[in-house]
This record gives sequence, C-alpha cells and structure tokens, in this order.
Amino acid sequence: MVPLNNSQFFLTSLNRLIESFRRLPGVGPKTAQRLAFYILKMQEEDVKEFSDSLTDLKSQILYCDICQNISEKVTCEMCIDKTRDDSLICVVEDPMDIYVLDKAGIYNGTFHVLHGSISPSRGIGPEELRIKQLIERIEKNTNIKEIIIATNLNLEGEATGMYLQQILSHTKIKITRLARGLPSGSDIEYADQTTISHALNSRVDINENIK
Amino acid sequence: MVPLNNSQFFLTSLNRLIESFRRLPGVGPKTAQRLAFYILKMQEEDVKEFSDSLTDLKSQILYCDICQNISEKVTCEMCIDKTRDDSLICVVEDPMDIYVLDKAGIYNGTFHVLHGSISPSRGIGPEELRIKQLIERIEKNTNIKEIIIATNLNLEGEATGMYLQQILSHTKIKITRLARGLPSGSDIEYADQTTISHALNSRVDINENIK
Repeated sequence: MVPLNNSQFFLTSLNRLIESFRRLPGVGPKTAQRLAFYILKMQEEDVKEFSDSLTDLKSQILYCDICQNISEKVTCEMCIDKTRDDSLICVVEDPMDIYVLDKAGIYNGTFHVLHGSISPSRGIGPEELRIKQLIERIEKNTNIKEIIIATNLNLEGEATGMYLQQILSHTKIKITRLARGLPSGSDIEYADQTTISHALNSRVDINENIK
Repeated sequence: MVPLNNSQFFLTSLNRLIESFRRLPGVGPKTAQRLAFYILKMQEEDVKEFSDSLTDLKSQILYCDICQNISEKVTCEMCIDKTRDDSLICVVEDPMDIYVLDKAGIYNGTFHVLHGSISPSRGIGPEELRIKQLIERIEKNTNIKEIIIATNLNLEGEATGMYLQQILSHTKIKITRLARGLPSGSDIEYADQTTISHALNSRVDINENIK
C-alpha cells in the first residue's frame, strides 16, 4: 500500500486553497482544511461571489484624502458630514477602531487613521504610518483645537502615542489621551497590576464630581 | 451628527466580503469583520491568489468514477493503487473521513464517499447521496466481500448507515460498522450515557483476547 500523505491526498487545487486560508489570522491547519472542504460543497455562484468580493475589495477601496479612513469616495462620509466638529481629531490605529469609538455615541468629532502602529520589531517606523497626512491636515486646518490619541494600550500603541505627542508638542493644539482605568463590569480581583496602578493614579474625587 | 450604522460605516465592497466570510462555517460577524479588514491589509497578489484558488478549486475538482472521492483525475490515486484490497469498501460521508481513517494505517481496502448523510430536516434523501454509484460498483465488481459502514455517529449518520444496511441486505456481502465505545484517552467520568451503554454492551472478554 502506498501510504497516503498530505500531498497525495490533498489535491493540488485543494492544497492551494488550504494554503490561502492558512494565511488568514486565527486560521490553523485544521480550520483551513475544514473551510476548503466546505468551499468544495458550496454552490458555484456563491464561490464565485466570494472570489469576486475578495478582488473587488482591493480595487474599490480608497483612502479618504482627509482622515485616511477606508472609503469608496475621495473624501469619506464622515469628513463630508458638516454636523461633525472638525476642531477635534481622534487618532486611531485602524478603521475598525472608528466604528467602536463612534458607536459609543458621545464623540462627535473627526478621526484620523494611522493604519498601524510603530513597531521596530516588525520594521514599522513612523514613516510607514499615515502620520505625515495628519501633520499636513493640521497645517491646512487652523481650526483644530484638540487631538485625542486613541492608539491601542499595548507596547506599539503606547510608543506611537508618545511619538505623536512629541512631534505635535510644538503646536498650540491640546493633546489628550483616552483615560486608563478599570474596564466597566470588571472584577478588581482579576485586574492586572498596570491597570490597577492607572486606576489608582487617575482616581477621581467623587465629592468634586457631585459639586 | 449622522449616526454611524453598519451600512454607512462598512463600505459596500467591504460589506460584501464580510457577507462572504459569514457564509463559512464557524465564522461569526466579528470574525468575518476581522478577516475582511485583514484582507484589506494583505498584498494585492496574495488576495488575487486567494481569489483564484477559490474559483480554480471548483473548476479543477472531479469525482473519482469508482469511489466518488474528490480527484483531479477520472479515477483517483487510491482506486488505481493495485496494492489496495478492492474486496473491502469502507463507506464514508465526506472526503476528509478517508484521510482520518487511512492515517490510522491499519486499513488497506478501498473507500466510497457518499458526500453527505440522509437528513430529512435539510431535505437530503438517499437519492441526493452517491448511493446509486455504490450499488453500481457492487454490481460491477463481484469480488467485493465486505462493506464497512463508517458514517458519523450522529442522527443523520446512523440513519444513513441503517438505510445502507437495508438496501444491501439482499446481497451476500458482509456488512459491518465501526466499533462504538469509549474513545482512547477519555475519562469515564465525562463520557455520555450513550457511549457508556455502547461500551458496556460491546465489552470485550480480556481472557479470550489473551488466548
């Protein structure tokens, strides 16, 4: 008996699709196999639609000329929206972050997407991010009063925030950062030491709030 | 402020890809969003490769004219392999099952893929499965001595197994089914009642085995 090995059992075209799935984040070899076998069973038109939606996304998506968010128009819906306060810019790493911040319903300013964070270990420096566009935007729009840094709270996000703080320090614009502390609904017992430290250092005077 | 809703934030082409990902098994709305945003960041040639591998799979895969397994040739490698015992047919639901059964290294017979299981709730009857091809195969090859039913151990798989048993009962071919019992490495404490019942009913005389 010729023993079955992956290359013999998994046909070339199947292997190729498994490899494509494996490149996606969070998809291991077993999941990639399962997904590829599922594609085999799918209707031809659904597979065609999937395939087309992949290539079309790449060809149809632009970056907004103001906030750098993904857009299907030169300037995105949010930057065109005159009801938004364009004296406020909230700087985020990724388009997804805008969705989360906006959903809270208490921020009515504009955004700026960096498309990543500074990460020397992955060879990503400030010039790889859309920081230049942020500076140009500030220079063009003299109306800007505050920049809220909303990068992630990990090493790369913090480094990016500090870098922005430095390069913007010469301007008269107020630079702020999202508050750190215990997340809503969390147990103090399970909070990490860094979060506890921030929650203690940034503690709020309740009496003062009541006044 | 115009509130952001999904349809406004997620661009048409992005939405379309998110929808495509959501059709895959085990992919929820959050994962679909994450994957679509990841595609946005991928190199254009990698996305093209992914897209092509999807459509090519559908166009290049055939079903083996003997065992009905997926194949890139008219007759698959396993059915051509003369070192395999073609008096044995192991009937499975899906191509993936062949891989698992063959990997164990103790089965040297052939396979037959039904491509599904009988499921009245999903409108899948025996005629939707490749049972007709199995019967034709048995009629053509008078050498067949045993058919091992290896459908899944759920409701649909059991129903399919019982159906096969019935329609094959008039032949002189021996019909067997994979043994049921406790899986290797399992804790009796966590075994379900059905498994325990099968393990008890099919208990093996150890003395007899030693003889």
